[in-house]
Order: sequence, then structure tokens, then C-alpha cells
Amino acid sequence: MKLFTYFRSSAAYRVRIALRLKGLEPEAHAVALDGAQHAEDFRAINPQSLVPALMLDDGTVLTQSLAIMEYLDETWPEPPFLPAGREDRAKVRALAQMVACEIHPLNNTRVRNYLTDTLHLDGATSQAWYAHWIRTGFEAIEQLIGADGYCHGDRVTLADICLVPQVYNARRFEVDLADFPRIRAVEATCGALEAFAAAHPDRQPDAPATA
Amino acid sequence: MKLFTYFRSSAAYRVRIALRLKGLEPEAHAVALDGAQHAEDFRAINPQSLVPALMLDDGTVLTQSLAIMEYLDETWPEPPFLPAGREDRAKVRALAQMVACEIHPLNNTRVRNYLTDTLHLDGATSQAWYAHWIRTGFEAIEQLIGADGYCHGDRVTLADICLVPQVYNARRFEVDLADFPRIRAVEATCGALEAFAAAHPDRQPDAPATA
Repeated sequence: MKLFTYFRSSAAYRVRIALRLKGLEPEAHAVALDGAQHAEDFRAINPQSLVPALMLDDGTVLTQSLAIMEYLDETWPEPPFLPAGREDRAKVRALAQMVACEIHPLNNTRVRNYLTDTLHLDGATSQAWYAHWIRTGFEAIEQLIGADGYCHGDRVTLADICLVPQVYNARRFEVDLADFPRIRAVEATCGALEAFAAAHPDRQPDAPATA
Repeated sequence: MKLFTYFRSSAAYRVRIALRLKGLEPEAHAVALDGAQHAEDFRAINPQSLVPALMLDDGTVLTQSLAIMEYLDETWPEPPFLPAGREDRAKVRALAQMVACEIHPLNNTRVRNYLTDTLHLDGATSQAWYAHWIRTGFEAIEQLIGADGYCHGDRVTLADICLVPQVYNARRFEVDLADFPRIRAVEATCGALEAFAAAHPDRQPDAPATA
């Protein structure tokens, strides 16, 4: 397998965590979201010009982080990303989707570029947009998750895998997280696990060296 | 079961189709996305103030349309929303997510309200925003789906259930669909099925009477 990734992409970060949790370490190909994603060779792999994309050994390309993670979970069932009960599974998927369908799509690179390059918004207005959607989503998530360092129950699920990269992003954009103690507990507990730590943007080969 | 819905909500439209396909007709409660979604009584049901929400007979509330549809598919397996093979399942889920995680989140009511009320964008600029994200997403989907009136294979999947409401929305906002013949074929083929027709916004009790 080959993973097309970018160190800062929140969706790629999710899939890096998921792969590590399953004990998989596919060859990583960095696709810088600075224009390289629109190059012909990558568009041939993913017409959406988005990372992550996972190329299987037979050349099949899987896209969309949630779809890739469901595939990984169906193919390598241990450790499971979803609980056993159907209602619990729905709740965990919903939490994952509150990040992946409600927060992240409004704040990713292509949207921030549109705000700046097409709408010509100033930095403060873009920042307010960013913080608004983070807060709106985190307020709902905070009410729905547990207080013990996991979104649901006492083990890592798809919800934690989506939430931790979103928290990293929120911190990068200096959003105040004081009102979200449960979310910060997930960040602390899950973020400390080796699979999460190894998937962190700062630890990727394509991350710039820190001073 | 009770479904909290709004006739024009694209995410609620998906779940209405899904319920009909499974032969289920829960009691419908309309939540107008004109402010009613922020009322205390609905926030107690869904802290996100979003529709759809599905209340099960034991009072459990499921949210997020994709999570609800996976729950329906796990609970009432026929007809299946996903193909049998793992790679095919991943491809169908990815198509569904290209709508639910890449297009719809940028164009739903709360985002359009933010563009107008907070950013004070004029109508033409909001319309250009709307059309930009539709086109970006539809260009990728058009390359990945089949030409026979279904997104994947020869039967309805989760991808069609997500795509048809997005096409309805695109038409409502007068986005030109000439470049998307495969997407229009899905609209024609799937849209004509009784489950899709019965779920159409115009056929909901909370839709305004047409002149």
C-alpha cells in the first residue's frame, strides 16, 4: 500500500493514526497542499486533488478519510474502530462526522484559500470564520462525549481519531479551548498513545525542520 | 421512531430516501431551519441544532445523516445501501462523503446565513461561492461514477442517496449542470424511483403550498 499524505492535512492525520492503530505502515508519498495536489500525476490518482488517498497493492485508490478508515476496519478488524452495538456505532460515527462533515470542511486549506484569494477577506475576518465553526462544532461535541479521555466508552474509536487532529488544527489557529475540558481530555489521553504520537504532523518526513 | 426533518434540508432528504427504501415510515416532526432549530426543546434533542435527527422507540437520538443511514443499513439489511466487496464499499462511501463532507457542508443554510449576515456578501458573491463548491465536487464525482444512471454498479447505493438531494439543491440555486451528464443520469434514474419521489422536498407536509 501507498499513502498519499501531507503532514498538516487533518484528514491525512486521521488516516495516519488509523493505519498505526492497525499496525500498518504503508509507504508514504507527500503531496504538498501548495499547488502540487493539482499536478496531472496526482489528479490521475485522485481527481479531487485531495489527500489522503490510499493506493492498495493492486493499484485501487481509496479516497475520503472516513471511507478509508471503514475499509481498514473491515479488512483488519483488530483493534476495532467502532463499538459492537448498533446504536453505539451510530453515535461514534456521528461524532466522527461532526468533525469530518461539519467542522473540517469549512476550515481546510482550499476554503481558507478561497476566503483570502477570492473573497479578499482580511486576516482577522478569516480567523473569526475559522474560530466560529470550531466553536460551533466543539460546543456540540463537548456535550456528547465522555469525561474520561475518550469520546465514547473507555477505548479509542473513530471519533477520537477524527477529534485529535481537529484539536491540533484548532490550536494551530489559536482558538481558545478553555470551554472544552472533555475535548482536551481526549487530546491528552489519546494524543499520548504511540499510534497518535507517530502520526502527529511534526513527526512526518515532509514537515519542515523546526529551528 | 420519530424523524426530525425539514423539507428543504438536503441531509434530511437523504434520510427520508433511506427510510423509504427500507420500507420505514417514522412519524415526521418538521423543524423549520428559520430559527426553530435553536429552540430549547429541539436543542435538547440535538445539541447541534441540525436536522435530521432520528429518535428511536427507546428515546435514543441518532444524528448525522451518514451515521443514521449506516444504522438503518445494519438494522434492516434489505435492500443493502452498500455493495458486498470491501473495496466497492469504500468507493461508494467515498462518493457519499464527497457530497456529505466536501460539497454540502459549504452550502447549507447556516453557512449561507454566515455569508450574508456576518460577512455581508452580496447575492452574486454568495451565489458564486455556492456554484464554486458544487462545480468542484461535481467535476470529481462525474469522473468517478458510472454512466448507467447509478453512481456505482446497477442499483441504488448510499452514493445515489446523497447525490440526488445535492442535485436538487444545485438546481434550486440555478447551477448549470450541462457538464455533468452522468450526474444528471443518476438524478433521472434514481429520482424516478418511488422512494426518492416520496422523499422529495415538494412532497413533504412542511413544504409551502405551490401556487
